[in-house]
Amino acid sequence: LIKPHAVKKTRVPGVTLHRLRRVHDPRGNLCVGEFAKDIPFLPRRFFMVFDVPNAKHRGEHAHKRCHQFLVCMAGSLSVQVKDGARSQIFHLKPQTEGVYVPPKVWCSQYNFRPGTVLLVFASAFYEASDYIRSYEDFVRFTARSGGTRVKKR
Amino acid sequence: LIKPHAVKKTRVPGVTLHRLRRVHDPRGNLCVGEFAKDIPFLPRRFFMVFDVPNAKHRGEHAHKRCHQFLVCMAGSLSVQVKDGARSQIFHLKPQTEGVYVPPKVWCSQYNFRPGTVLLVFASAFYEASDYIRSYEDFVRFTARSGGTRVKKR
Repeated sequence: LIKPHAVKKTRVPGVTLHRLRRVHDPRGNLCVGEFAKDIPFLPRRFFMVFDVPNAKHRGEHAHKRCHQFLVCMAGSLSVQVKDGARSQIFHLKPQTEGVYVPPKVWCSQYNFRPGTVLLVFASAFYEASDYIRSYEDFVRFTARSGGTRVKKR
Repeated sequence: LIKPHAVKKTRVPGVTLHRLRRVHDPRGNLCVGEFAKDIPFLPRRFFMVFDVPNAKHRGEHAHKRCHQFLVCMAGSLSVQVKDGARSQIFHLKPQTEGVYVPPKVWCSQYNFRPGTVLLVFASAFYEASDYIRSYEDFVRFTARSGGTRVKKR
């Protein structure tokens, strides 16, 4: 029994919501993704975010060149993406969904329920200079790199 | 505050136990691994195993060429590896540990506590012919490919 991989566009251009391929089995369920096929890139790095107090926000930055793919592994959380003009909030279903965040998109995660584990794949090794950590800088950067949709928050 | 990546040998040659790099933060904890550096290969595929009844076993096969890396994302489970002669059982600490399983090692997962999510990275796309699903075939295969340590279960 298999549900195929499915990709949906979102309100933020370039950001896509993925339903992962799913295999039901009496010995337990399995969800799977193949890199550079289902997931739009090959990862160089993965990280897990956990033990996040409910009031805290994670992320709150954009990348200049790095692509990311987020999966909620357990619990629940909200993910917000914005490109300066458009924004969308996702409440990711655990294990079965993922959101692809291309470079030059601002991304925050919040509303972590206790026990929540967020998994992130990144297309590049850690590099401090690839992070845009201020929203003002983000607006300036996307404007400079050809964004016409960008406006102030 | 950072704990560095650390790798330990195990009783099964080639199999290694990894403590992942850990970053403490008031906004929540983070564990990270870089592929082909901390983790011994670049993944082509990932899958998550969940909703496994406690009495069930998963895995119970070996790969001819595919490398795997297992991380317990939530809950707890046991992982057994064996090469025909030696075996070891791991109770993986969630999020902070991983076990690297090279090709030609038999691997089973069991004792899934409710809510457990197992994450597996694989170095190859899915290919049915890469799986050795019978322990008898595994013993024959490892003996043929130069294993001298192999004995019957």
